Amino acid sequence: MPTLDTAPVALIVHAHPEPRSFSTAQMTTAAQALRDAGYRVDVLDLYSEAWSPALARDDFASVEGHFKPQAEQMRAVEDGTLDATVRAHLDRLLAADLLVLSFPMWWFSLPAILKGWVDRVFAMGAVFGGKYGLFGDAALAGKRAMLLFTTGGACESFQPGGAFGPMNDFLFHIHRGMLEFVGYQVLDPVVTYGPAHMTDRERAAALETVRESIALNSPRP
Amino acid sequence: MPTLDTAPVALIVHAHPEPRSFSTAQMTTAAQALRDAGYRVDVLDLYSEAWSPALARDDFASVEGHFKPQAEQMRAVEDGTLDATVRAHLDRLLAADLLVLSFPMWWFSLPAILKGWVDRVFAMGAVFGGKYGLFGDAALAGKRAMLLFTTGGACESFQPGGAFGPMNDFLFHIHRGMLEFVGYQVLDPVVTYGPAHMTDRERAAALETVRESIALNSPRP
Repeated sequence: MPTLDTAPVALIVHAHPEPRSFSTAQMTTAAQALRDAGYRVDVLDLYSEAWSPALARDDFASVEGHFKPQAEQMRAVEDGTLDATVRAHLDRLLAADLLVLSFPMWWFSLPAILKGWVDRVFAMGAVFGGKYGLFGDAALAGKRAMLLFTTGGACESFQPGGAFGPMNDFLFHIHRGMLEFVGYQVLDPVVTYGPAHMTDRERAAALETVRESIALNSPRP
Repeated sequence: MPTLDTAPVALIVHAHPEPRSFSTAQMTTAAQALRDAGYRVDVLDLYSEAWSPALARDDFASVEGHFKPQAEQMRAVEDGTLDATVRAHLDRLLAADLLVLSFPMWWFSLPAILKGWVDRVFAMGAVFGGKYGLFGDAALAGKRAMLLFTTGGACESFQPGGAFGPMNDFLFHIHRGMLEFVGYQVLDPVVTYGPAHMTDRERAAALETVRESIALNSPRP
């Protein structure tokens, strides 16, 4: 195991409102599995930080007239006037070799608080656009990202022909539209289906599966 | 044209932070086109209402111990203790024959403020689950919904084989996972690609296209 100074960094951005939830236990388990694999782990817990999700005019110091969100992001990145919290999160993002988004799947997507983290922190000019391109030319090219989440529905519902639809089709907007768009290589997601319907024993087994999946899916860079 | 009392209702939920944006002009154009088609139009402007997107414990009057968001939604629907703003929005949703989600596409999905409207207002027990099922058995079955949005990228980028990926694949999580899930028949989306790169004359033509598309895509129930 490397010393901390040279260890790769994993940033986990977590978005569940309940510290005692299975989702939070899953995040904690994953964090330890990443440490065991030699990562230095940085956890950003959006609910406990009371993160504000809405990208809005008051994010920016001095918008005159017509507010164009991405143009303002570009300008604030260039001027060094990004909102201080956004800048701090962005710096943690840029320092990470591996990004893990940890959440309960709500409406087949990210909870709003986490979507708003992407809206505000994946700033144009800092992670794509401006001096960066998209996909392989974006700022996070060469780094990796992974989704870690829970569902309400059963695994069968997410199979092709299942009641909901194929899981990969639901994840496309995140994998392709958010993570690959800014350059990440996307690792296989780690998913626990329907923990709300599990016994305590089943939950413990599910956490062990998470630990093994993280070890398997997130080899060190 | 029917009298207002018997007119079908269209609820437009709008999510752009700038009243002078093309996105807001597009919404206003669509609202008028729906009125011209005989709808009574109800506009809910999330930024101007300072809507709070994060589904959180303080949405609920008295959560004891472990906070389980969907279980609390069910209980609050049954007890009549839903947050007053959420309840008011839910009542407007239930009263609408047509739901229009109006937004700039951010990260190939809804802006966080609009995602959080779905997270909080599509309450379990009120629009699905509890006495309702899913999809055709959900509360909004028999009603229709439509996306009205703008993109940053060009239309070609959203074609199969394009730089981003097929638009329908990006929209799947919304069309299938949010709208059909609660029972809606989903109408063809109305999309303006890349208005930021248009001249004033092109924008005016694009708004005219929006007007025609709304007239075409949203026949009265």
